[in-house]
Amino acid sequence: MKKVLLIIMDGLGDRPNSSLNGKTALQAAYKPNLDYLALNGATGLMSPVSLGIRSGSDTSHLSLLGYDPEKYYTGRGPFEAMGLGIDLLPGDIAFRANFGSVINSKVVDRRAGRIKDTSELSKSLATNIDGVEFIIKSGVEHRAALVLRGKNLSDKISDTDPHNIGTDPLFTKPLEKEAEFTASVLNKFIERSRKILNEHSVNIKRIENGELPANEIMIRGAGKIPEIPSFREKYGMDAACISGTPLIRGIAKLAGFNIISVDGMTGRTDTNYGNVINSAISSLKNYDFVLVNIKGTDIAGHDKNPELKKSIIERVDQAMDPLKKILTNTLIAITGDHSTPCSYGDHTGDPVPILFSTEGILSDYVNSFDELSVSSGFYKIKSSDIMPIILSYSERAEKYGA
Amino acid sequence: MKKVLLIIMDGLGDRPNSSLNGKTALQAAYKPNLDYLALNGATGLMSPVSLGIRSGSDTSHLSLLGYDPEKYYTGRGPFEAMGLGIDLLPGDIAFRANFGSVINSKVVDRRAGRIKDTSELSKSLATNIDGVEFIIKSGVEHRAALVLRGKNLSDKISDTDPHNIGTDPLFTKPLEKEAEFTASVLNKFIERSRKILNEHSVNIKRIENGELPANEIMIRGAGKIPEIPSFREKYGMDAACISGTPLIRGIAKLAGFNIISVDGMTGRTDTNYGNVINSAISSLKNYDFVLVNIKGTDIAGHDKNPELKKSIIERVDQAMDPLKKILTNTLIAITGDHSTPCSYGDHTGDPVPILFSTEGILSDYVNSFDELSVSSGFYKIKSSDIMPIILSYSERAEKYGA
Repeated sequence: MKKVLLIIMDGLGDRPNSSLNGKTALQAAYKPNLDYLALNGATGLMSPVSLGIRSGSDTSHLSLLGYDPEKYYTGRGPFEAMGLGIDLLPGDIAFRANFGSVINSKVVDRRAGRIKDTSELSKSLATNIDGVEFIIKSGVEHRAALVLRGKNLSDKISDTDPHNIGTDPLFTKPLEKEAEFTASVLNKFIERSRKILNEHSVNIKRIENGELPANEIMIRGAGKIPEIPSFREKYGMDAACISGTPLIRGIAKLAGFNIISVDGMTGRTDTNYGNVINSAISSLKNYDFVLVNIKGTDIAGHDKNPELKKSIIERVDQAMDPLKKILTNTLIAITGDHSTPCSYGDHTGDPVPILFSTEGILSDYVNSFDELSVSSGFYKIKSSDIMPIILSYSERAEKYGA
Repeated sequence: MKKVLLIIMDGLGDRPNSSLNGKTALQAAYKPNLDYLALNGATGLMSPVSLGIRSGSDTSHLSLLGYDPEKYYTGRGPFEAMGLGIDLLPGDIAFRANFGSVINSKVVDRRAGRIKDTSELSKSLATNIDGVEFIIKSGVEHRAALVLRGKNLSDKISDTDPHNIGTDPLFTKPLEKEAEFTASVLNKFIERSRKILNEHSVNIKRIENGELPANEIMIRGAGKIPEIPSFREKYGMDAACISGTPLIRGIAKLAGFNIISVDGMTGRTDTNYGNVINSAISSLKNYDFVLVNIKGTDIAGHDKNPELKKSIIERVDQAMDPLKKILTNTLIAITGDHSTPCSYGDHTGDPVPILFSTEGILSDYVNSFDELSVSSGFYKIKSSDIMPIILSYSERAEKYGA
């Protein structure tokens, strides 16, 4: 049996960039180590979730770890809460939340004048009502996540976000009998929040400054944190995750991964990739399976910055030099979780390159790791095919039949 | 409509072999006829059952004939019984069995000292109890298969193999109400067998020689022989099977194939491949579909003998010369049922090469039949895709729509 290192370069797939002479970032980058692994590996194209699906990092990571997102992706509420770094437990109910502005009992802005920072406000709302803990964490600008933790909670309740302005602020309603308790405690929370927010020094100051107050917490997208079978249960492997992104760490935690912190891993483009790769390699001593998510490539794609994406690939490649020495007893798989073409600035449904490399593997004719070269490789797969292929190449698969 | 010849070279897929200059057996072999069929055909890579699945010959043959193994593979008991050549009927309950040793009422060995031959012992146990026929057949060393044939039988009964030593010998227990009759007759069989085996001259002699007696028949893996729709029903073709392997013949029989015997077909590496291919060609006069399974490539893979695998491929290729003359009115499909790389010595989940050839087909650019060359061919498929492609190329598929 071999150890497994799965490296996800977030948003790796790209399209032609005029500033890179019509090349993708991978094509334009100098990346001798990725090319070495492609030359000594089996390659192909992988469609995240399925062909043409513009998957998010959440649905895609679920899928590539073998958790069908149709079953385990319980909506944006829970996964955005994970993304904000709230430590979630199975059974928690999570929502996306906005801070909005209510004046004369009418919603006048759903973004509270695009308020820059709501962390003070969020802190003031944390409470415990009728045995239910309310955890709230601010995101970018007016955005936040709200989590309810307690017994007998249901996610079958209506949004309090009116999705419109000029309307009355809303209370939530239970959508089924079992949700009455949840709706009732949540409405108590909303009433309490209104009072706190209206009296909060941040809002008093905003009104003095002629800014809209952030005096209404509007929630939407209720979802239950899914209970997912642990990675150990599914595959018999002890797993660890290295990622600078709270969403990825949240998903990994749900699947029972241990989270490994790395000095200089920021989740931004200034991450110390040498530390990341070296930490992954040393973690393989204690774990059977190490998942690494590298966020920089996705950030560069969203920023429509092909030069940055190329340079991040080059820096990651340089850090990958020591991977060549662990191929004897390690299966290395490298791919993206989706494409984030710099020319588009968001996720697309384009397939992403993938490679599997380990000593003794049958290599295809591909000797370069980019979208075009790998298209003549062995595989045209979906993300849900990755784990079975990994189990087979790492000599961990049970035989099916005789 | 064309006739169909499907040739399965068992365990065909391979990995680099140092003794073949890093080539796979197919790459290293001189095989002008396979290359001719690839040149004049459509090729690709096929994943048996699904990507990365280490399928057995049983699950894989079910799948490639269009029988979903998730539905029809009822466990190793029935399929190992087929593998030992027991003629099975739908409704039969089959088990894997071991001869073990019981001394002072404790199981001391689950393999009866790796006894060489249990066929005398097996013969002595055949009987009929309460209308249920007990059929038992010895396999290699301590292994055997047990089949119960009769009315109202259930496979929902527990193992009597304790899977451990130092324990009491077990009786079976019903796992549901409907299995009570089955458990009761099987326990009568086990009591009767203990008496017979303890008094059997083979065991008396073994004890005199200081060897462990084979005095306990331990069963596990109960499974019902599946009822599968006949090949004729599914595809409207009269089908025949040529195979030296009881397991493959058993599966084909279940699907209603006629079994054709061939002089010099041994199921070993010394099979007369000329006779096999010639017999297949002449069978196409009487049948629409002929399935040939060639076992030698798999045996060489399990033996970790790349030179042998290469030479078997060369001998089969030589025997294939007359295939070039039947392409006008025959679709020939050639593939493996899984990979058995010589470097690994067992099945892996690697995809296997496949080719379809017949007059008038659109050929891809591939002109050599090996794992790497066909990776740039038309197809990246699963075994369950083979039959629809065969029906289309052989002009037997119904139009779907207008």
